[in-house]
Amino acid sequence: MAVGLSDSLPVLHPVAGIRLAVASAGIRSGKIGRNDLVLIELAGGAACAAVFTRNAFCAAPVVVARRHLEHSPLYLLINSGNANAGTGAAGLAAAEHSCAAVAKLAGCRAEQVLPFSTGVIGEPLPVERIASALPALNASLAADGWPQAARAIMTTDTVPKAVSRQLEIEGCLVTITGIAKGSGMIHPNMATMLSYVATDAAIDRVLLQQMLQRAVDQSFNCITVDGDTSTNDACVLMATGVSAVRVSKGGHAAAEFQAALDAVMCELAQMVIRDGEGATKFMTIAVTGGRDEAECRRVADTVALSPLVKTAFFASDPNWGRILAAVGRAGVVDMDLQRVVIHLGDVCIVRDGGRAASYTEAQGAAVMKQQEITVSIDLGRGQARAQVWTCDFSYDYVKINAEYRS
Amino acid sequence: MAVGLSDSLPVLHPVAGIRLAVASAGIRSGKIGRNDLVLIELAGGAACAAVFTRNAFCAAPVVVARRHLEHSPLYLLINSGNANAGTGAAGLAAAEHSCAAVAKLAGCRAEQVLPFSTGVIGEPLPVERIASALPALNASLAADGWPQAARAIMTTDTVPKAVSRQLEIEGCLVTITGIAKGSGMIHPNMATMLSYVATDAAIDRVLLQQMLQRAVDQSFNCITVDGDTSTNDACVLMATGVSAVRVSKGGHAAAEFQAALDAVMCELAQMVIRDGEGATKFMTIAVTGGRDEAECRRVADTVALSPLVKTAFFASDPNWGRILAAVGRAGVVDMDLQRVVIHLGDVCIVRDGGRAASYTEAQGAAVMKQQEITVSIDLGRGQARAQVWTCDFSYDYVKINAEYRS
Repeated sequence: MAVGLSDSLPVLHPVAGIRLAVASAGIRSGKIGRNDLVLIELAGGAACAAVFTRNAFCAAPVVVARRHLEHSPLYLLINSGNANAGTGAAGLAAAEHSCAAVAKLAGCRAEQVLPFSTGVIGEPLPVERIASALPALNASLAADGWPQAARAIMTTDTVPKAVSRQLEIEGCLVTITGIAKGSGMIHPNMATMLSYVATDAAIDRVLLQQMLQRAVDQSFNCITVDGDTSTNDACVLMATGVSAVRVSKGGHAAAEFQAALDAVMCELAQMVIRDGEGATKFMTIAVTGGRDEAECRRVADTVALSPLVKTAFFASDPNWGRILAAVGRAGVVDMDLQRVVIHLGDVCIVRDGGRAASYTEAQGAAVMKQQEITVSIDLGRGQARAQVWTCDFSYDYVKINAEYRS
Repeated sequence: MAVGLSDSLPVLHPVAGIRLAVASAGIRSGKIGRNDLVLIELAGGAACAAVFTRNAFCAAPVVVARRHLEHSPLYLLINSGNANAGTGAAGLAAAEHSCAAVAKLAGCRAEQVLPFSTGVIGEPLPVERIASALPALNASLAADGWPQAARAIMTTDTVPKAVSRQLEIEGCLVTITGIAKGSGMIHPNMATMLSYVATDAAIDRVLLQQMLQRAVDQSFNCITVDGDTSTNDACVLMATGVSAVRVSKGGHAAAEFQAALDAVMCELAQMVIRDGEGATKFMTIAVTGGRDEAECRRVADTVALSPLVKTAFFASDPNWGRILAAVGRAGVVDMDLQRVVIHLGDVCIVRDGGRAASYTEAQGAAVMKQQEITVSIDLGRGQARAQVWTCDFSYDYVKINAEYRS
C-alpha cells in the first residue's frame, strides 16, 4: 500500500473554464470495463503550458502534443492502457487521428487537441475504439469530473492522486486543482508520469510556461524511484482566466500563485513516490553545504538511486556505511570526508570521517522503524543545497517489474 | 548459484618468486574458523603495480597501500571480515600497525608492506588478532598457496575466483596467475572487489602500471552489478622477473603479454559478475555505431544499470521497450531513433523506430531462456564501440542486501 496515502480523494474544487469526462473504451483488452479515456475541455482563451519527457525516444503523442501546444489548445485527450510508444510512423498517424476525431466532434482544429497516452509500449494504438467512445465522452463533459479523471489515468498506480487548493489573491478566490499518475519514476513499459493541473486565474502563456517549469523543477524533477524515465512523461498547466484575477510577471500575485502552485505540484510529485512500485518507506534525501546546487543534487541522486541504500531502508537497517560510500562515489571533486556530517532523522550517524562517536545502533534502528525518513547530508564546503524524494527497494519492486507482462 | 561457475578451481600454476599463506585470525567474530588472512610474498626485485577505488571515501588500507606502493613492496597482507573503512585516524593507525608487524617478522621496512581489507565498514580493525596470526602465517608461505588464498579473500562470494595461464614468449614459458573476490560491483558494506595477479616475467614498474591500467580498463572497469563502488576496491599486478623473459615497452613480447594479461583479467572480472549478488543471468551489453567510445559506454552503462531492464532479464521477459527507453535516456545528443538497431542474441528486436517487423515474442522468449545473453545496440551514427558485463536483478539481490547484517 502506498506510504501515507489512501484510496479516497480529497475534495477537488472545480476550476471554472475546465470540464472533464471519462469513458471506458476497452483500449487494452477490447472489452469495456474500467475507464481508460479522459477528455479535458478548456474554455476559449485559456492558456496552456506543458513540459515533456527528455527521453530521446519520446512517444508519438509527446511528439504531436509538443507540436500542437503552439496552437491554443482547447482539448486534452488522454488514454491509459497503451503508451503509443515505439510505434513508428503508424503511431504518429494514430495520435493525429485521435486529435482529428475530437476536433470533428467539437468543431475545432485538430491542432487544438493535445494527445497523451500511457500504458504498454510497442502495441498499436486502437484508434477506432477511441473514436467510438468520443461522442459519449464529449456529451458528458462536466466541471466536477476531476475525481473520475484521476482514477481513469491510473495504470500500475495503487491509489488515485489529486490535490486541490484555493487561495485569495487581491481579494478574489483562485482555485488550483490537479491530478497525477505514476508509480515509479517511471515505467518505460506500463509507461509514464502524467499530471494535469488547472487554475481559473488569468496568466499569459509565456509566464505560465515559466511558472510550470519552476514548479516542475522543485517537484516532479526531484523525485526518483529507479532512475528510469519514461518515453511518455508529461505535465500540463492550464489557466482559464475565468476568475477575475490576473497574475502578471513580477507582481505580488505572481509570487503568491507560484507558491501555491509549487505546493500543489510538490504534493502530487510526492504522491507518486509514496505510491512507488513496492514502496514501504518515503525518504527525503536533503543535501546541504555544497559549493553549488549541481553537486548537491548529484550527491542526493546518487544516494537516492543506490540499490544498496534502498534495500537497507527496506530492511530498516541503519547502514550508514552504504550511505557514506554512495556520497563518496557521487563524483564531487576534492570532497573532504572529515567535514561530511550525515543525519538519519535527528540522529547523527557520520562525523569526523566515520561513524559518529555519539551514535548507537539503537538510535539508528528507532529512526529506521518510521515510514517517512529524512537523510540529511552536510558536505561542509559551501552554502548550496538540494533535495530529492525517493522510496525504498523491496521484494515487491522486483516482483512488480519481473512479473508484469508475464 | 553463480552463472556458469562452480566451487572447484582450475589448475593454478605457481608463479616463480611468489609465495602465499593463509590463516584464520578470527577477524570478524574473534573465533578461529574460516581463513580470513592472506600473506603474499614477492621476491626481491619484483615490480608491483596497482589501481585503487575512485571512491572519494577510500578505506584506510587503500590510503596506506597507495603510499607504500612507491617503496618496492615485498609483502601484501590481506584480511577479509573487516573493511577498515570509515574508521578515521584509528583506522589508518591500525593499517600501519599491521604493516609494521609484518615488517618486524620479515625483516623489511613497514613501507614495503601493502595492506588490504574487505568486510564490514565502520568496525575497528582488530590488529592484535592479525598480529597474533602472523608468525604462523609467515612460516607457512608456499608457492602453491593460490587456491587457499582465493578462498580466504572471499566475503559474500559464493565461489572462489582464480585464473591461470601460461604462454610462450621468445621460447620461454611465462606464467600469469590471478585471484579475485567480489560479488557485486561492489558492496560498500561487506565491501570490495579485490584482485591479485602475478607473473614471473620481468617488467619494469612504469610499464607494468600501464599494462595493468589497460587491462583493468577492459575488464574490471567494464563490469557492474548495481553501480555502487566500494571504498576498498584494489587490483594489484606483480612481476617477479624470475623467468628469463623480459617484457619491454613496444616490443613483440609486450603485445603478447598484454593480450594474455587482458584475457586473465577479463575472465576474473566476468567471474565477479557471474557471482553477482542474486545473479541468475550473465549479460553482455555491446554498443556499436557511436560517435565516440564515451557515448557508447554511457548507453551500455545506462542499460546495464536500469533496474527495469535487469528485472525483465530476471523474469526472462524480452521487454524491448525497457531497453529502448534506457537507450533513450542515456543522454546521447541528437540520437535518431530511426537508426537504432537492437538485437537480443541473434534476434533483431528494434529497427526503424520501433519493434522490428520480423520480431516475434517466441523468438525473444527463446533467447531469454538462456543463462548468458548478449544485448547488441547499434546507434547507427559512427564507428565507436564499448561493452560492459552485468547480471540480472532478482529477489535474491534484495534479500542479500536487505538481510545482510540483520
